[in-house]
Amino acid sequence: MRAGSERLSLNTATTKRWSLQEAVEGCVRAGIPAIGPWRDRVHEAGLERAAAMIRAAGLEVSSLCRGGFLTAADAHGREAALEDNRSAILEAATLGTRDLYLVVGGLPLGTKDVAAARERVGERLAELVPFARDHGVRLLLEPLHPMYAADRAVVSTLRQALDMTAPFDPDDVAVAVDTFHVWWDPELAEQIARAGRERRLASYQVCDFNLPIAADALLSRGMMGDGVIDFATITAWVRDAGYNGLIEVEIFNQEVWDTDGDKTLALMRERYEELVLPFA
Amino acid sequence: MRAGSERLSLNTATTKRWSLQEAVEGCVRAGIPAIGPWRDRVHEAGLERAAAMIRAAGLEVSSLCRGGFLTAADAHGREAALEDNRSAILEAATLGTRDLYLVVGGLPLGTKDVAAARERVGERLAELVPFARDHGVRLLLEPLHPMYAADRAVVSTLRQALDMTAPFDPDDVAVAVDTFHVWWDPELAEQIARAGRERRLASYQVCDFNLPIAADALLSRGMMGDGVIDFATITAWVRDAGYNGLIEVEIFNQEVWDTDGDKTLALMRERYEELVLPFA
Repeated sequence: MRAGSERLSLNTATTKRWSLQEAVEGCVRAGIPAIGPWRDRVHEAGLERAAAMIRAAGLEVSSLCRGGFLTAADAHGREAALEDNRSAILEAATLGTRDLYLVVGGLPLGTKDVAAARERVGERLAELVPFARDHGVRLLLEPLHPMYAADRAVVSTLRQALDMTAPFDPDDVAVAVDTFHVWWDPELAEQIARAGRERRLASYQVCDFNLPIAADALLSRGMMGDGVIDFATITAWVRDAGYNGLIEVEIFNQEVWDTDGDKTLALMRERYEELVLPFA
Repeated sequence: MRAGSERLSLNTATTKRWSLQEAVEGCVRAGIPAIGPWRDRVHEAGLERAAAMIRAAGLEVSSLCRGGFLTAADAHGREAALEDNRSAILEAATLGTRDLYLVVGGLPLGTKDVAAARERVGERLAELVPFARDHGVRLLLEPLHPMYAADRAVVSTLRQALDMTAPFDPDDVAVAVDTFHVWWDPELAEQIARAGRERRLASYQVCDFNLPIAADALLSRGMMGDGVIDFATITAWVRDAGYNGLIEVEIFNQEVWDTDGDKTLALMRERYEELVLPFA
């Protein structure tokens, strides 16, 4: 079990202007022991080079963001999604992380059948699981805030995500808890505990929910402490469910992106140590 | 039981630029048999005058929007909220509607304890129920989309709303289904059916969920057909749960507000007859 700040991980979305190399160096300077890269940064650096630079810096890889977008209704869209997810699985394995985040996808353009889209997610998970298992990768269903249900993820609650994992082994398909997406859920305590019992609580991401909602709704994620989320309570639920892994900070926020990366990492570490760590 | 377009009701938020008098006249011109006024429009017109003008026009009142905002943590805020809700109850009774919508309120400024805020809603409901019952008014809990959980309503799902009504008689406290707020809910079919079984399905509001989310997130409500919602499916669930009351159209949307009111009513009627009525 890791202790204290040894559990902190930088998700590279938080320092959007940094290349992967810059993010790795920033983590080392800030004493942050882990990184959760997005695939675009990995592709820019080149996969093998990305894996080597992270390894050389002595950082752990907390997860890879992200696969998913599995809801296409047509054969071409289905094939393209499976192909892309197989690539993501190989990338995760090469980077040395077990955990691949999946943002499952929204309603295919022009369609309105949410139930059918959810069903396709289940079917395509089943197609991906053997390949992922062969490469030692666990697929993480991430419930996204319901404001993204139409265009990003038809999986909106932890209960629903856990229900969808039921056909699979917990070593193959698990769930991620991201405070931004689930803080409002009246069943959150109960479903986090269930995720622990079912051995499916695989990743914990923290960031705040800022008000007012940003004009670009994707950018409402905030630095812990800047918004409405009670990190003490949620983090304690996650701890009590048995989670003792890395804790990623993933923030999409124009103001954070416009800030010097080293300052962002210092603030992120400070807020983590004040608001999250005591309850983790 | 009402039939066909006899079930359509204009919520006055849809024609924001119209006074109550203008909205009443607009409904008469458009052959819309009912109106759901917001309190600001009623106050502008004067309560007795508002009631008289709606009656004289032969319109039904589908509901009154809205009471609520019951989450204040301090004694002064609590008293002010109870007082305001008692006024709203009297207004509903005078206007001749049984149904008062409640938007329960968000997190009091500077607080982050969602569970405590939800508890206060329950306590204050209990304080209001006898007064409402004495005036023949039913309080409607409206789950709001989780994007408004922090600043408008800590009641976010129909399951949660129904759970909160449990201590009360269905004639005193019931729930409202607004497609915008609940369309994404993976438990929606099941909870609508439950609302019917528990005799608590008291009101049905329709409007679409538009993408992208408007810069002012409150204004993302759209005309039926302009967004992502499958009205056929949800309306059939509402029908199968036994609901045969009025159907309100409530749209906050700058483009709709910038349109001539008569045109909005014509379009609303057309879309209602095409997308909602066949399944109602």
